[in-house]
Amino acid sequence: MIRVTVWNEFVHERTNDVVASIYPDGIHEEIARAVRELAEVPIEVRTATLGDPGQGLPERVLEETDVLVWWGHVAHDDVTDELAARVQARVLRGMGFVALHSAVLAKPFVRLLGTTCTFRWREGDDRQLVWVVDPGHPIARGLPEVIVVPRDEMYGEPFDIPAPDELVLVSSFSGGEVFRSGCCFRRGDGRVFYFSPGHETHPVYRQPGIRRVLANAVVWAFGGPVRSDERRALQSPAGWFEQA
Amino acid sequence: MIRVTVWNEFVHERTNDVVASIYPDGIHEEIARAVRELAEVPIEVRTATLGDPGQGLPERVLEETDVLVWWGHVAHDDVTDELAARVQARVLRGMGFVALHSAVLAKPFVRLLGTTCTFRWREGDDRQLVWVVDPGHPIARGLPEVIVVPRDEMYGEPFDIPAPDELVLVSSFSGGEVFRSGCCFRRGDGRVFYFSPGHETHPVYRQPGIRRVLANAVVWAFGGPVRSDERRALQSPAGWFEQA
Amino acid sequence: MIRVTVWNEFVHERTNDVVASIYPDGIHEEIARAVRELAEVPIEVRTATLGDPGQGLPERVLEETDVLVWWGHVAHDDVTDELAARVQARVLRGMGFVALHSAVLAKPFVRLLGTTCTFRWREGDDRQLVWVVDPGHPIARGLPEVIVVPRDEMYGEPFDIPAPDELVLVSSFSGGEVFRSGCCFRRGDGRVFYFSPGHETHPVYRQPGIRRVLANAVVWAFGGPVRSDERRALQSPAGWFEQA
Amino acid sequence: MIRVTVWNEFVHERTNDVVASIYPDGIHEEIARAVRELAEVPIEVRTATLGDPGQGLPERVLEETDVLVWWGHVAHDDVTDELAARVQARVLRGMGFVALHSAVLAKPFVRLLGTTCTFRWREGDDRQLVWVVDPGHPIARGLPEVIVVPRDEMYGEPFDIPAPDELVLVSSFSGGEVFRSGCCFRRGDGRVFYFSPGHETHPVYRQPGIRRVLANAVVWAFGGPVRSDERRALQSPAGWFEQA
Repeated sequence: MIRVTVWNEFVHERTNDVVASIYPDGIHEEIARAVRELAEVPIEVRTATLGDPGQGLPERVLEETDVLVWWGHVAHDDVTDELAARVQARVLRGMGFVALHSAVLAKPFVRLLGTTCTFRWREGDDRQLVWVVDPGHPIARGLPEVIVVPRDEMYGEPFDIPAPDELVLVSSFSGGEVFRSGCCFRRGDGRVFYFSPGHETHPVYRQPGIRRVLANAVVWAFGGPVRSDERRALQSPAGWFEQA
Repeated sequence: MIRVTVWNEFVHERTNDVVASIYPDGIHEEIARAVRELAEVPIEVRTATLGDPGQGLPERVLEETDVLVWWGHVAHDDVTDELAARVQARVLRGMGFVALHSAVLAKPFVRLLGTTCTFRWREGDDRQLVWVVDPGHPIARGLPEVIVVPRDEMYGEPFDIPAPDELVLVSSFSGGEVFRSGCCFRRGDGRVFYFSPGHETHPVYRQPGIRRVLANAVVWAFGGPVRSDERRALQSPAGWFEQA
Repeated sequence: MIRVTVWNEFVHERTNDVVASIYPDGIHEEIARAVRELAEVPIEVRTATLGDPGQGLPERVLEETDVLVWWGHVAHDDVTDELAARVQARVLRGMGFVALHSAVLAKPFVRLLGTTCTFRWREGDDRQLVWVVDPGHPIARGLPEVIVVPRDEMYGEPFDIPAPDELVLVSSFSGGEVFRSGCCFRRGDGRVFYFSPGHETHPVYRQPGIRRVLANAVVWAFGGPVRSDERRALQSPAGWFEQA
Repeated sequence: MIRVTVWNEFVHERTNDVVASIYPDGIHEEIARAVRELAEVPIEVRTATLGDPGQGLPERVLEETDVLVWWGHVAHDDVTDELAARVQARVLRGMGFVALHSAVLAKPFVRLLGTTCTFRWREGDDRQLVWVVDPGHPIARGLPEVIVVPRDEMYGEPFDIPAPDELVLVSSFSGGEVFRSGCCFRRGDGRVFYFSPGHETHPVYRQPGIRRVLANAVVWAFGGPVRSDERRALQSPAGWFEQA
């Protein structure tokens, strides 16, 4: 049983009518529904938002999360450094982490990657074409060769991330730009997936192909039970492993 | 002093007037000029073609080549298996290998990569935009963020190659497709670069940005003196390295 | 249901009394038992040997194999090029391939990797310590930090393979050498794992930790249904994907 | 002209007689000598220590550094977060960074990698054998197949780092452990090399093979001029690149 928490800053939906009309229950609820519907394994999905107690991820909630999905945009700075550090530490202990769209600049993601994670961008009328470049990858299962997103924000190269451990998706935009839009990273015992489509003013997470990516990503990011302790430098006398 | 050989099947230029008018001396001579002009290191560039004795790469020529550039398209099957095996072996001993455009399906390249190296394609009016996704890479030095190729053949994903060791360039096309157009591989002691732009009916190799890639790729692919012997399984008695 | 075929050249067991006493039913049967016992998913394991009709892998058998395990040593040259090509092609279409010990020099493996796959070696009294360097990897599940193999052949660096896509295990030997002993490669739609322990004159495949690696590797290498057709270069008119 | 700064916390040499007798001028001066002697390119090497003004790396010094070498052990916590952030930012802008031995736990390194960077360790009498696993790599140029370090601290797996972009060296120890001892990472526009040998109570940095690694690493880590500005998210109107 994979225990998933979908976290959302939940700001746009309460301040912008367009976003509210697309995601009346919040982006997090739509994502949660997609994962519940399409993950073909036993799974339990809850949601949490920045306004909840403990910014939605108090110790206990995080400890009961196997895979954390994160959507954030305008409120990155409101997330405490303490929470960002806790999320990072739990990923290193084995929690899966799926960062969506502008979560590329969220504190936990940037701390895990160590680079600026910046890119070119444009809010406009671009059509985004999301291409599968690694058809044998678990995250590509059941996907068409290309997902057509009629309108989305443009995110373009250069994208300042470490080379992904696995590159699954690459997007092009009407304006001509390209972007590594589906990237796998492994950090500590945890698996991290970044997926760039999903601007809040377009119903991107309601598209079947995109929902399939969300569900596949959650299943891929699950790596089994999370370690109970943080890895530490371990003094190891000669022959320590002989007794084992 | 880097000793470069630019090899070309040299067929289109002699059978197609459009190609002949763009590359009157053959594609190989144009590529050779680009490398001579722009490589900022001591370099010596010769050319060879399929019609030359020994298919252009008799033992002695190959032995005097530090970096081999390969352009081929319609005559892949005319290259002998014996030559393909010799090229592969020399790459593994440390020779650089730069495969251009349809050389992706040339025998030595396919043998080195082990996959089908297939892709989608279209001869048409596409504009190709070649984006730098790894600006710190030596092959990206001096390049603009994007090279605009007004007209080129479309090569699109899925591109059936092993994940490149370094991904430097990604292209988009007017038709919407994307392609990993600049890929580094390391095989044995040798370095391999694949660069996809360059359809013969358009003057792609005359563009400054493209020429810069060609020169940078040759310099990057040079890894020092080539080993004189092939690697072999070596029986190694206990303590063999103590005497060293 | 994962359909596994364990292939063995089956020569040593019939010509060498030591090997016969360790593996009276053949190495293949021991490996098959390990996979059956420890794979925690629905699985069906059959065995095949070089002496069987069609060298053990006639068209039909290969077509019904999702993951192929390969053990070979002295009879590499007896495997036909035609069979090696068929195995390679099926891996590229999505079949998993687990190459064991000296299968590193078997034709299908060398064709898939494109390098010489050579290394240093010594038949002697070395103790091999197999260390997990990627504890979060599926192939490391349930393994101790180190598997102690009391006696095994030494396989040492330099190991002439492309950089593995994922490096899971690294061994040291009493003699001081090291070896990348558990390496993942992805080729085409298929997954390839190389695992180096297993010299035939020592009961390596009877050790619990080693058996756990075998079972985990088979499960990891399974990537879902194999493609029915080979990938080909596909001419793709403008807008081909719009109808989809 | 590569401008190198060798930074050392410079504590052990002033508090421990053994260390002082091995490195009477400080570890930094010995490293600086090695780089000056063996780098076969125009190079200028200065040294800096934690006790110097601005912790040895005031704004101006860092701005004039193309490659920074870092040795630290007991004083990691004395390095200010502000300095660690400045070093990280400069690496992302293109500065090379060579982290030595226990600098694996230094603040700038840990921030760049995003993991705990922990490992097993033992101060004892281990002999370390440093094996070249990537003989074609620039950092391996001129090295023997193995560097024998008669006595060194043991650093062993599991080593909690992201998979290196290039793995060049792997060590074994008398006690049987292994360690990825020479690892390349690329972060932002910068190149990072971690090299683990070098415990302060043994004259490791006086050995010719080790010195060759130090010099090669500095040359490899140099990636050309450092960007003057930090990468930022760039709003990019449609067609922004057409004017170029």
